[in-house]
Amino acid sequence: MPVGTQGTVKGVSPDELEQLGAQVILGNTYHLHVRPGEKLIARQGGLHQFIGWHRPILTDSGGFQVFSLAKLRKITEEGVHFQNHLDGTPTLIGPERSMEIQRDLDSDIVMAFDECPAHPCTHEDAERSLNLTLRWAARCKAWWNQEKEENRPLLFGIVQGSTYPDLRERSANSLVELGFDGYAIGGVSVGESEAEMMQAVECAETLLPSDRARYAMGLGTPPQMIEMIARGIDMFDCVLPTRIARNGTAFTRRGTLSLKNACFAEDPKPLEEDCECYACRNFSRAYVRHLIKANEILGLRLVTIHNLHFYLNLLRLTRVAILDGRFAKFRSDFMSNYRPHDIE
Amino acid sequence: MPVGTQGTVKGVSPDELEQLGAQVILGNTYHLHVRPGEKLIARQGGLHQFIGWHRPILTDSGGFQVFSLAKLRKITEEGVHFQNHLDGTPTLIGPERSMEIQRDLDSDIVMAFDECPAHPCTHEDAERSLNLTLRWAARCKAWWNQEKEENRPLLFGIVQGSTYPDLRERSANSLVELGFDGYAIGGVSVGESEAEMMQAVECAETLLPSDRARYAMGLGTPPQMIEMIARGIDMFDCVLPTRIARNGTAFTRRGTLSLKNACFAEDPKPLEEDCECYACRNFSRAYVRHLIKANEILGLRLVTIHNLHFYLNLLRLTRVAILDGRFAKFRSDFMSNYRPHDIE
Repeated sequence: MPVGTQGTVKGVSPDELEQLGAQVILGNTYHLHVRPGEKLIARQGGLHQFIGWHRPILTDSGGFQVFSLAKLRKITEEGVHFQNHLDGTPTLIGPERSMEIQRDLDSDIVMAFDECPAHPCTHEDAERSLNLTLRWAARCKAWWNQEKEENRPLLFGIVQGSTYPDLRERSANSLVELGFDGYAIGGVSVGESEAEMMQAVECAETLLPSDRARYAMGLGTPPQMIEMIARGIDMFDCVLPTRIARNGTAFTRRGTLSLKNACFAEDPKPLEEDCECYACRNFSRAYVRHLIKANEILGLRLVTIHNLHFYLNLLRLTRVAILDGRFAKFRSDFMSNYRPHDIE
Repeated sequence: MPVGTQGTVKGVSPDELEQLGAQVILGNTYHLHVRPGEKLIARQGGLHQFIGWHRPILTDSGGFQVFSLAKLRKITEEGVHFQNHLDGTPTLIGPERSMEIQRDLDSDIVMAFDECPAHPCTHEDAERSLNLTLRWAARCKAWWNQEKEENRPLLFGIVQGSTYPDLRERSANSLVELGFDGYAIGGVSVGESEAEMMQAVECAETLLPSDRARYAMGLGTPPQMIEMIARGIDMFDCVLPTRIARNGTAFTRRGTLSLKNACFAEDPKPLEEDCECYACRNFSRAYVRHLIKANEILGLRLVTIHNLHFYLNLLRLTRVAILDGRFAKFRSDFMSNYRPHDIE
């Protein structure tokens, strides 16, 4: 899922996203609540109508941004009291309020409101936080149960538990007992090692029902996604393809290219050979590098389109490999070709 | 002609420009010479190939930017000695060098190298400058005559003469005597009054052959274009539609809208009703305002697309009105509907 934080996937238009084959985009509840506000969006006909995107939208709960962006937080049983990062307005967001905001946004997949503890975190703090998150998850489910059936979006629970396998397992089991339409692994990619991240996914994943979508939140690099898929993960959201595009970095099967490097100044090749995206069909590395160096908008647009195509296409190829029963070879080929650092 | 200063019309892709119906775009010789350099562009197959634009390109002579952007200028008979604004490299551009750069860029319409005197300017200074510009025009024509016929682009001369009718007339007559493929009016919109600008155009225009294109450089607002067309002008280039789009200002038949105004926060209407551009067919003023306020790239892209459509469509409608013999009514209707300031 490309990430559309403020009601747009940075750098691309909805028709470009459709042409790229994006199936679902993510909207950030916290950002949209702060500006322009979910009530304004509701009066404009909901987020789909407002932003011109007619396929599904998943909204996060706002929890992660409340903890990472807002000021003067105070956590109580009721929810989180904070001042928003734009104008400091004091606000309370708890489970029911998060659900209401996501409903006003006309989200198709809403996420339960959770607390995302910082990393590192003691077992005691992680357990206290998890218990609160589980009580909040029950309140989100109760809110959802009271809604009329025809108004209900899908509701996903979020597994927490920091780096502690016992807590991750208890979290997964408790959520499955409550019953959700899908399950996310939260609190990953928050500063822990990649080994800890994989362990957090592995602990929970085996306990989650295989007929429900499993979603690793805020991930990841191309190799991380392939490894997560090998562990049963179905869904991802990630700002990487759009964020690093704005720095002039392009993904390829062999690793990333930093277009600012002088070696591309006269390179007539496309960002990636054999790539079928609009950028690669029409423009050279030399031109894209010139645009990036000259701070031209078209430069980051072209790299954004290429990177989103790379991510979406990688997952399409992975799905086909799984259906054809050749995922193991696909995985090992991909992992052996991909370099973790800039390749040129 | 949309303006593509650094090898891209700011905010839009070549396929969007084609869909908008742009026939010619302008490239800035000075900017492209400084970065990435005309030799690099030539090695990449020329500007059309480099930037993916397969319709005609007009390049300016570089003169105007040498005078407005470069540092430590010294004007001699040979040309202009300056240090470029990016890294201060000392450079000489004179008539032959300007022609060579424009040829390396693979331009379809090249402009003679001229001096554009500052405004205001005494009659004595304007005359001295004009005499130099006319000697330079003769050198450009001589350079062009020596080129093989199959390599020759179209060559346009530039009328100068500041605000002095006698100089404007002498300039036009001298250029026609030299003989060019088209004629531009330069040194307008450089700080003089609109009345002086119209007079400068009127003085020259009647002396220029009506079977050659007449081009008013660096203009203008929609009413200025309509008034210039009434005086016989055929071609324009202008950064206004793309530049003010980046500030969130949209053109309409009734005047400009500043999307930052609070009155648009919940306005479900398109930027302009009945407009057929991509932005107006798909998005509301409320959404575009949100994007502009949130500094999202899509906001300036949508306003840029709308403004380019507005300009290109206005000239299409004008052409049809002329062919149908109803330009006088078209002109008076347009002028009475268009407000010179923000309308909301």
